[in-house]
Amino acid sequence: MKQEPIQCAVLGASGYTGIELVWLLHNHPQFSVKFAFSSSAREAEPISTLYPQLSGRCELILQPWHSDLLPQLAQQVRVVFLALPHEASAELAPQLIAAGLVVFDLSGAFRLIDAQQHLQAYGFKQPKLDAAVPYGLAEFTQLQGDEPLIAVPGCYPTAAALALRPVSHLLTHDSVPIVNAVSGVTGAGRKAQLHTSFCEVSLQAYAVAEHRHQPEMAASIGRDILFVPHLGNFKRGILATIYAQVQSGISAATIEDTLQACYADKPLVRIVNTPPKLQQVVGTPYCDIYCKMHGQQLIFSVAIDNLLKGAAAQAVQLANQYFRLPPSAGLMNPGAVV
Amino acid sequence: MKQEPIQCAVLGASGYTGIELVWLLHNHPQFSVKFAFSSSAREAEPISTLYPQLSGRCELILQPWHSDLLPQLAQQVRVVFLALPHEASAELAPQLIAAGLVVFDLSGAFRLIDAQQHLQAYGFKQPKLDAAVPYGLAEFTQLQGDEPLIAVPGCYPTAAALALRPVSHLLTHDSVPIVNAVSGVTGAGRKAQLHTSFCEVSLQAYAVAEHRHQPEMAASIGRDILFVPHLGNFKRGILATIYAQVQSGISAATIEDTLQACYADKPLVRIVNTPPKLQQVVGTPYCDIYCKMHGQQLIFSVAIDNLLKGAAAQAVQLANQYFRLPPSAGLMNPGAVV
Amino acid sequence: MKQEPIQCAVLGASGYTGIELVWLLHNHPQFSVKFAFSSSAREAEPISTLYPQLSGRCELILQPWHSDLLPQLAQQVRVVFLALPHEASAELAPQLIAAGLVVFDLSGAFRLIDAQQHLQAYGFKQPKLDAAVPYGLAEFTQLQGDEPLIAVPGCYPTAAALALRPVSHLLTHDSVPIVNAVSGVTGAGRKAQLHTSFCEVSLQAYAVAEHRHQPEMAASIGRDILFVPHLGNFKRGILATIYAQVQSGISAATIEDTLQACYADKPLVRIVNTPPKLQQVVGTPYCDIYCKMHGQQLIFSVAIDNLLKGAAAQAVQLANQYFRLPPSAGLMNPGAVV
Amino acid sequence: MKQEPIQCAVLGASGYTGIELVWLLHNHPQFSVKFAFSSSAREAEPISTLYPQLSGRCELILQPWHSDLLPQLAQQVRVVFLALPHEASAELAPQLIAAGLVVFDLSGAFRLIDAQQHLQAYGFKQPKLDAAVPYGLAEFTQLQGDEPLIAVPGCYPTAAALALRPVSHLLTHDSVPIVNAVSGVTGAGRKAQLHTSFCEVSLQAYAVAEHRHQPEMAASIGRDILFVPHLGNFKRGILATIYAQVQSGISAATIEDTLQACYADKPLVRIVNTPPKLQQVVGTPYCDIYCKMHGQQLIFSVAIDNLLKGAAAQAVQLANQYFRLPPSAGLMNPGAVV
Repeated sequence: MKQEPIQCAVLGASGYTGIELVWLLHNHPQFSVKFAFSSSAREAEPISTLYPQLSGRCELILQPWHSDLLPQLAQQVRVVFLALPHEASAELAPQLIAAGLVVFDLSGAFRLIDAQQHLQAYGFKQPKLDAAVPYGLAEFTQLQGDEPLIAVPGCYPTAAALALRPVSHLLTHDSVPIVNAVSGVTGAGRKAQLHTSFCEVSLQAYAVAEHRHQPEMAASIGRDILFVPHLGNFKRGILATIYAQVQSGISAATIEDTLQACYADKPLVRIVNTPPKLQQVVGTPYCDIYCKMHGQQLIFSVAIDNLLKGAAAQAVQLANQYFRLPPSAGLMNPGAVV
Repeated sequence: MKQEPIQCAVLGASGYTGIELVWLLHNHPQFSVKFAFSSSAREAEPISTLYPQLSGRCELILQPWHSDLLPQLAQQVRVVFLALPHEASAELAPQLIAAGLVVFDLSGAFRLIDAQQHLQAYGFKQPKLDAAVPYGLAEFTQLQGDEPLIAVPGCYPTAAALALRPVSHLLTHDSVPIVNAVSGVTGAGRKAQLHTSFCEVSLQAYAVAEHRHQPEMAASIGRDILFVPHLGNFKRGILATIYAQVQSGISAATIEDTLQACYADKPLVRIVNTPPKLQQVVGTPYCDIYCKMHGQQLIFSVAIDNLLKGAAAQAVQLANQYFRLPPSAGLMNPGAVV
Repeated sequence: MKQEPIQCAVLGASGYTGIELVWLLHNHPQFSVKFAFSSSAREAEPISTLYPQLSGRCELILQPWHSDLLPQLAQQVRVVFLALPHEASAELAPQLIAAGLVVFDLSGAFRLIDAQQHLQAYGFKQPKLDAAVPYGLAEFTQLQGDEPLIAVPGCYPTAAALALRPVSHLLTHDSVPIVNAVSGVTGAGRKAQLHTSFCEVSLQAYAVAEHRHQPEMAASIGRDILFVPHLGNFKRGILATIYAQVQSGISAATIEDTLQACYADKPLVRIVNTPPKLQQVVGTPYCDIYCKMHGQQLIFSVAIDNLLKGAAAQAVQLANQYFRLPPSAGLMNPGAVV
Repeated sequence: MKQEPIQCAVLGASGYTGIELVWLLHNHPQFSVKFAFSSSAREAEPISTLYPQLSGRCELILQPWHSDLLPQLAQQVRVVFLALPHEASAELAPQLIAAGLVVFDLSGAFRLIDAQQHLQAYGFKQPKLDAAVPYGLAEFTQLQGDEPLIAVPGCYPTAAALALRPVSHLLTHDSVPIVNAVSGVTGAGRKAQLHTSFCEVSLQAYAVAEHRHQPEMAASIGRDILFVPHLGNFKRGILATIYAQVQSGISAATIEDTLQACYADKPLVRIVNTPPKLQQVVGTPYCDIYCKMHGQQLIFSVAIDNLLKGAAAQAVQLANQYFRLPPSAGLMNPGAVV
């Protein structure tokens, strides 16, 4: 018998990540979206006014968030997903926790453990919480179902860590893997900006060796990383090409076996035999990993949808885990909104 | 209680329309894909080899079709969807009917009633069948569930007719509506051709006033039509801008009311207040219709996904109708493959 | 012997049209860019900071415009090109004329003769000038070389009028030609706006039958026009598909001959036998016109580069005419900047 | 006084590289295109039939090549540019040399010195010639004007070598630089192929650590290289992100100074302060190089137009050098064809 739906709210539902979250939860067999809040001071309006593709399929109202709504929220929902700017999450999450809500935070507010690193990366102090916040790289986390707050990983760190974590112990002691990644423009959010305007986008490296996902990536993988992100001329997806030095004596077969063993029972990671096209993961919750040895050099080509496995779908995957549902529940076929 | 699944086969499953059909049926609550056949003489292979996005989500084998398989097919499935070249459909459909199968044909083989028009448009003689073949413009058809063969409309005619059929009686007697439409490149199929290669595609009119969808469109709407198709630099979708002359005395409100009344209980047509973006229908089974009067000139902007409402989703919608299922069953959220 | 260069200034040089103008003039055999002004209050900077593609090829400084600079300007240049917002042009042009400069205005400030139409289209009063301002549709204008101000036509009206003006007298008395046009995103300018951001652009009609280029188009062609513009998912170019009713008795050959005769000695209009791809005019100063008769219905497919033939190149073509240079001087091969 | 034009022929003029060569030479102040040959057995036709963008600007006839034409060719032209398949170049070049012609070969037929490497990379034996063939990386070559045959470098090796050659002596002894590059689809040529059809292109790595440009790149730079190419969803351009280990004690300033000194008098290499966008080199003959030190890790972001600096423009640059013309003669503003 189908259980009572688990009521959820999405804050920041008007953004690209937020709307994907709303759509995933709206189609989920166990979760139900009770509220969709916009972060800004806009008027209440049907979510299909902003995203007409949802008209007839999702009749939620996008309403402006006010802190006055907290008691009502706490009464009517169990889970809150935050798709907010980092600082807004940092401010709001403790209040939501105090009200007894379970919070999945998709911002960077709680991903870094080191307070100094956090301050440098995000420019504001990380709030102190009573308990440590689990970093939810879904395939490497085991949520117990009693955590008040879960930090959902960033998009680039998800792609990099899913490739490197299983094999990190097979790399040379001093190998500093190189993560060369290209992201789609949705990664920059929905706000109008010159550098993401249609006529300006053109493949380009940015934040070379100084992107704030670097410390997160390094912490997740457990070793230093050199990270060079690029903006690509496509809407969705991250393709990361990763280079690392394997210890001598480690064969391609060992690497392959290690990856296969690691992900044997993880349905949302696919080990593939051909370097993945972005198009094969866009609109899906998968991370596709291709791997090749060249001498002692290990080369990965990794693809995810930045808004799904890199954000919304991973958040839902974690919520599935939290509530002991199958990892891919609700993630197999909802398609993409943006 | 859920009923036994209705077993289906898709022929031409390796093409863009075929694979969308497979995916829709695979996710459908009542239909099940028993066989997916490729039209050519390729080796059997997992469908996910050709479309790696489906790996882990759809483990069907794409097998080459041989007529020897007909008895087995007739025994194991009830419904066959043909996503084949026109002439292949023309040849195969009668055999399938004779074997007692229900056939939804997505080609142009059986859309035109006039044999001479057919010969001119398609270059081969239309096979003679015992019974008339219903032309399945889904919102204007009422299948009884005993038809052996249903002709699924073409993509351009679907867009044009959904706008014009409800108001055709309000147009001036001699109005020849103009259908100016732009289609995505998937409309040209999956085969490598110079004019659809990445570096060659650029917005361009083609087959000006001589496209073979013109007679189909005219027959569906019931009046002469001037049709100018264009190839656009995008993968999916058709945007049709349509111009027609309204009889004097007919107001914008009358047109609006007529459209609203016509589609009040048709969930897959959305009357919209703003000219639709292609992006809002891509990956969906909807036809979005915007309408504006300017003097006695009526202007429509109509958007569909050419592979879904213009092909695969309309075929499933018709199959839903055939089996008395809700029109949008299985069509609300499967996303797109290509 | 080569003559002394004619000194020019470009105002609004930081925008997409402005930079194309700068580049055309910079490579022109007779014109020389003395000053490139930005419209806003930005700091002076090399033009190659904004457009690094010009680094090493064009060392101009982009300097902020102040009216204090007028005397210096009047002393050092003969010609000023205005690529400014409409209202800024309206305000500045009279001052430049008073200072004895020749002004080519690329805005809409002086294109409409009817003051009421202007007010309605642009929302501000058109300044009164002593003399009528010639509307510079280059192939239909004969500048004398003593005009103080020339209005350079809009992009859409250029495409529509080059097709329709030669044949307008062959259309039925009451034919209201339909201009269905798709423009690239550069047409919306360089400012960051949500509807032109990379993730939001998707083929869409807009300003249906109410775009402010409609009165300009109608005035240029000399009859009423129904105009429906669309925004396309490409950077540059306009493809216009045009429909008109020809008088009975007028043959396709007559239309063809009329077009050929009209443009026989006009090197920047090409009558083509195949509907043009946008790509074949992008980066060029050409207007490509394809024409087909279907009964008494005349169908044109017309392509221009909106920033060149639709703006900067047409302005230079007019300046060539003004100074009795060949029409295509400096326009054959400079390529595009944006 | 302007000299007599140097007569040239282009073989393989119908391809993307060939047509760019034709256009560069056609607009060149000293070279003149006497013949444009197509490689295949097509009929003679105006070059503007294939490339209508050139109509009115380039009235050359594209004629099929036959070896019977060799005597006439030898009589009427001095220089031949080969934009042919590798094996066709290998076969033809010796005949052209024997006839006294100067040959610039844009294929890979003569780039590798090591016969074994060549055989492995290209699958056929490299023809033996009397003299060594200079490898024409333009900024590092000094042609004497008496060489019968010059091998024009490949596109990827050009981008990689222009970054790494100046600093190779500053790298650690055992550094194997990583070249992670993304190329536009024109790099795959004009022939219709499934993997370059519009609906199939999507960012993807290919030929991981086994592309045949690897040995060329390594030979050009003088050290082993790890090369991973990618196909990007754009028409033109290569963006290479390059990683190398600098010897301890070498500072960022040293690297910077070395690059600046190397390219001080090389007008077609631009050292830039911001990672380049592809768009800033597309349609230009430039190589833009951005460089950053991160510890002892050196990171380059390098951009070229694969068809220009990576092929046609470099060939012309070499021809300029051969005939003692300025390096950028004819390359500053011709724009792109494709």
